[in-house]
Amino acid sequence: MTYSVAVAGASGYAGGEILRLIADHPELEVRTVTAHQNAGQALTAVQPHLRAYTHLTLAETNADTLAGHDLVFLALPHGASGAIAAELGDASIVVDCGADHRLEQEGDWAAFYGGEFHGAWTYGVPELPRLQGTQRERLAQTRRIAAPGCNASTVALSLVPGVRAGVIDAHDIVSVLAVGPSGAGKALKTHLLGSEILGSANPYAVGGTHRHIPEIQQALRWAGAADPTISFTPVIVPMSRGILATSTARLADDADASSVREAWEDAYAGETFVQLLPEGQFPRTADVLGANTALMGLAVDEAARRVVVVAAVDNLVKGTAGAAIQSANLALGLAEATALPVNGVAP
Amino acid sequence: MTYSVAVAGASGYAGGEILRLIADHPELEVRTVTAHQNAGQALTAVQPHLRAYTHLTLAETNADTLAGHDLVFLALPHGASGAIAAELGDASIVVDCGADHRLEQEGDWAAFYGGEFHGAWTYGVPELPRLQGTQRERLAQTRRIAAPGCNASTVALSLVPGVRAGVIDAHDIVSVLAVGPSGAGKALKTHLLGSEILGSANPYAVGGTHRHIPEIQQALRWAGAADPTISFTPVIVPMSRGILATSTARLADDADASSVREAWEDAYAGETFVQLLPEGQFPRTADVLGANTALMGLAVDEAARRVVVVAAVDNLVKGTAGAAIQSANLALGLAEATALPVNGVAP
Amino acid sequence: MTYSVAVAGASGYAGGEILRLIADHPELEVRTVTAHQNAGQALTAVQPHLRAYTHLTLAETNADTLAGHDLVFLALPHGASGAIAAELGDASIVVDCGADHRLEQEGDWAAFYGGEFHGAWTYGVPELPRLQGTQRERLAQTRRIAAPGCNASTVALSLVPGVRAGVIDAHDIVSVLAVGPSGAGKALKTHLLGSEILGSANPYAVGGTHRHIPEIQQALRWAGAADPTISFTPVIVPMSRGILATSTARLADDADASSVREAWEDAYAGETFVQLLPEGQFPRTADVLGANTALMGLAVDEAARRVVVVAAVDNLVKGTAGAAIQSANLALGLAEATALPVNGVAP
Amino acid sequence: MTYSVAVAGASGYAGGEILRLIADHPELEVRTVTAHQNAGQALTAVQPHLRAYTHLTLAETNADTLAGHDLVFLALPHGASGAIAAELGDASIVVDCGADHRLEQEGDWAAFYGGEFHGAWTYGVPELPRLQGTQRERLAQTRRIAAPGCNASTVALSLVPGVRAGVIDAHDIVSVLAVGPSGAGKALKTHLLGSEILGSANPYAVGGTHRHIPEIQQALRWAGAADPTISFTPVIVPMSRGILATSTARLADDADASSVREAWEDAYAGETFVQLLPEGQFPRTADVLGANTALMGLAVDEAARRVVVVAAVDNLVKGTAGAAIQSANLALGLAEATALPVNGVAP
Repeated sequence: MTYSVAVAGASGYAGGEILRLIADHPELEVRTVTAHQNAGQALTAVQPHLRAYTHLTLAETNADTLAGHDLVFLALPHGASGAIAAELGDASIVVDCGADHRLEQEGDWAAFYGGEFHGAWTYGVPELPRLQGTQRERLAQTRRIAAPGCNASTVALSLVPGVRAGVIDAHDIVSVLAVGPSGAGKALKTHLLGSEILGSANPYAVGGTHRHIPEIQQALRWAGAADPTISFTPVIVPMSRGILATSTARLADDADASSVREAWEDAYAGETFVQLLPEGQFPRTADVLGANTALMGLAVDEAARRVVVVAAVDNLVKGTAGAAIQSANLALGLAEATALPVNGVAP
Repeated sequence: MTYSVAVAGASGYAGGEILRLIADHPELEVRTVTAHQNAGQALTAVQPHLRAYTHLTLAETNADTLAGHDLVFLALPHGASGAIAAELGDASIVVDCGADHRLEQEGDWAAFYGGEFHGAWTYGVPELPRLQGTQRERLAQTRRIAAPGCNASTVALSLVPGVRAGVIDAHDIVSVLAVGPSGAGKALKTHLLGSEILGSANPYAVGGTHRHIPEIQQALRWAGAADPTISFTPVIVPMSRGILATSTARLADDADASSVREAWEDAYAGETFVQLLPEGQFPRTADVLGANTALMGLAVDEAARRVVVVAAVDNLVKGTAGAAIQSANLALGLAEATALPVNGVAP
Repeated sequence: MTYSVAVAGASGYAGGEILRLIADHPELEVRTVTAHQNAGQALTAVQPHLRAYTHLTLAETNADTLAGHDLVFLALPHGASGAIAAELGDASIVVDCGADHRLEQEGDWAAFYGGEFHGAWTYGVPELPRLQGTQRERLAQTRRIAAPGCNASTVALSLVPGVRAGVIDAHDIVSVLAVGPSGAGKALKTHLLGSEILGSANPYAVGGTHRHIPEIQQALRWAGAADPTISFTPVIVPMSRGILATSTARLADDADASSVREAWEDAYAGETFVQLLPEGQFPRTADVLGANTALMGLAVDEAARRVVVVAAVDNLVKGTAGAAIQSANLALGLAEATALPVNGVAP
Repeated sequence: MTYSVAVAGASGYAGGEILRLIADHPELEVRTVTAHQNAGQALTAVQPHLRAYTHLTLAETNADTLAGHDLVFLALPHGASGAIAAELGDASIVVDCGADHRLEQEGDWAAFYGGEFHGAWTYGVPELPRLQGTQRERLAQTRRIAAPGCNASTVALSLVPGVRAGVIDAHDIVSVLAVGPSGAGKALKTHLLGSEILGSANPYAVGGTHRHIPEIQQALRWAGAADPTISFTPVIVPMSRGILATSTARLADDADASSVREAWEDAYAGETFVQLLPEGQFPRTADVLGANTALMGLAVDEAARRVVVVAAVDNLVKGTAGAAIQSANLALGLAEATALPVNGVAP
């Protein structure tokens, strides 16, 4: 069976990546691509790398152009998808790649985003351990999916196994991330210019202001953390894509350092797209470039009494578009891994 | 039907890329991977991005380990494949990704490589225009394939349509290429260190000494050029992969500038993997990253009386591993495009 | 003696670089820095790397703020300096880092820039060979200096010795340049975003449309070329700064290949900032990063009958700000090399 | 007065950087440069960016070639300088850029390096706050200087003001660093190849094994910390130089969040080369490229009860060669800032 697909925001990085991945999907067919400023242009005039779509033209982004598809991906700026999503009927499965439907608590939304609160949809990370049931089951029964924040899901996947197993303390977590600038989209800002990015490492949102913080805390609570706190610092580095998240948490007071690793091994034993490397190995972002894989390494620093988890993710794939398609596969009842590469493009 | 595959030199960049691409091939199954220094190790210890192959261990590279497969890829250093290839029987289709079987003229081999001359195999660029018949037909009837040099095939594809149509002069061609360092492989040389490569453009083999020159001339002769000359300069730039070849040739004396473009349009009209961009558009290497696509833009500089063709290729895909698999697909009688992505991974 | 200095356009890359270099100049003192959008801000809010200038605030760019200084640098967008320069009196030495005063022929200006033609000032490349007298002498006697185009001066310096000596043919020159994006300034354009630049090589102005072409031809004519033509293609590569220009020209019919090199050796024998590397060596852009040095390597490709000159320049130093200060030093009667580094910042 | 200088290890990155900086030093004159593998070659054959030194040839590294100079810089691999330093008499001031003379406690040396313990020399970071006296005073009276580890001094400078003032807890510090590969030197290792480094972030020494940990702890103890612990993770990112260290420490239980910043302001108020940015601003590594400046931003994350300090340093300048020269200036009684740039080379 073939499902019809519309992608809103097809001129952006997330929209483009959804299209790149779907090109290899035997059961999805892209019928409509929409944009704002670039409406009316050929898709490949804006996304010249998408050679499989030389036949598509960008339509306007609105409820009319998006209606009537089995599956709609919204890859719009934060705050733009809430209103348009409300106009799409239940006939479509809708995946929002923006932040509008990620947070359950209105207070978090108000504090970190502001504007109208639209409530939470099913969070698009199937592998996320939860206290009751699984996230995968939830996704198989939903028609509204909130694709995760790329940094948030990377850090959450890094730490929830330890929280769930009670071997780390979810209070006083520290995460520092090396991230590529594509996470910031195509916005024309001076600090995102190539001349500024090349040869430089550039921190932003330092000191507890980054919008992914409440999203991480939410996932930690789902895993059983009572009152998680996290010091979170992203650093833009000169690679177009990728997140390398170094997350550390204190060992729980009663944790046995030698058995900490098992919590992660158990949590991800059967997973295709979340893999723990053997002891002593740590991932590079190149290992997951273009792939839907979250690759992790773990060490226990006994002198510092901290667990260190280093996770590599392609922000546009497992961090956004891949998670969106993986979740949509589940919601459509298809094989979860369809069209999602597990091998990275390296070197 | 499933064909068994062995990859020799699986710890290198070309070997790794063959494996990455084959992972999505429904009719090829990798049975054996071999290496020299790394034999005995898990493949993913050396190629951590190849998550689909966590079950494979590197064997020694020799005729015994490679025998008995339907398809053998040799991704070995130049000069190393000639001897081992001679030991592989006709039961296997063999694709040599090294230079050993590319050149038809022993004098070229002696002048630019040296050592024993092994004679030429069928050149693995199906789209190459020839005076008689097509390269694609030749590949469909062969059991011995010489995958092309990445720079050579990029420049050849850029210019042969014009030579074939008689609108450019194959004498006094000038090509300058921006290339990523992965083309040089994993050799441990100071000038290939990250510290040396980052933030710098670095020319090499300046002044007519590069080994791909006779390979380009050979392809130009196949298209009808009598005595082609080329000034060829590669420049290593800070991108892991990619070739951006700027090739210029003088307009033929009797050429009508307004009809030059047609030669390229005609040559590549039906091709999946060689595409000419609309007038005024030129490709970036990011547009073809990870893809088997050669993307071209063409301009006629009437003041300088030169045609300028800019071509972007991923040196490890269309330049090597993709060309190898595309050619093997033909030799096996499979659909030529199987397992070969056409969309680039951008940004 | 101390000369007072104003820098217009101090928030841009060229303006910032002038300030960086002048910080080490014992006889120049920056009194005024001006900007357009950023007027009113602390200089270091916009140029945080200029730690020696934490005391300066950006004023508005106009004739009033710039008046009354011994030396005025105009680092303004092309087309913006002509009008303001006309308002500055002869009491100031003025250096224009834009294109407005580079071209002698009004037809060239009209064809490649357009708008009002302001006439040519003394061209700021002291080392440029000329048929009569020297460029250095002209600069020592001027009060109006046109700093060169970065690509143009790099290519001109690469070839004029051979033209001057009659060993190369100035007809049918081909130059391809790997350039960093800082040459395009801080303009907010999608193709200049870090995500687009990283990992990619991107050609522009292909086919004879680049504005530096008439500037190169002008310098070639100064060296004696009758009717120079040049195929000129710049390629943006992922390094913030730097130009690596590969320029080739046909050997003159009567040229003796073995004596070609002498023309360059003779032309640059006594120069501090233009250096020819020993035979077989070629420069990298990293070798001249932050330095006022143009570093060259030369090969004669006898098979192609072409001379190949590869030149590395930091576009913001020898290509712009360094050339501006070097020329100003001459105009002020100071030691030409004052405050200009010869060593590159590598790796 | 002119002091004669020898640089051992002049073919490496640290040695090259010492030479680059000394070129602008009016009172130091390089007489001897030595190397191991490259002895006998022209310095510029190995370090082509050092155009001011075309007259120097690399001698062998031994006590004979290094003897008789007023000032000797040892830029040798760890473990190599101890023995040779012991042969240099008191007539020379000696600066060791390796690790051999940094650690005071033999147990630290044994645990993290091993081999013969040579005892500690005066640590080459003048700005380091200490409980008694100043590091600057110590350097003014020494003839043996241990240039700091680049990561260690960056983290130490980031945190010691808070420790000294008692506003942060030196227990449970977490530091994650984005670092360029030049910190690893010119060693030929696969993971340092350009193809591996480009487009990728790569952690190493995860989990408490990095050799700079005891050096940081030593500096924290000098500032009054009783039993400091630190979780320390460096991540190699694709920039040739630079360290961006994100260091966080818990607020002391009795600390007033609003007055924390003062500790850093006070500590570095009069410093040229260690600068705290205004509230809300954070440094990029490009801001200090090529400069001897350590640039810091500070935030108090009240929700996480942690101070976050982000510091940018050029690992080869303030991290090594600049610190070495700054310290040598003090030891020689010269102006501390001589020959040391404060402005970074950006963009």
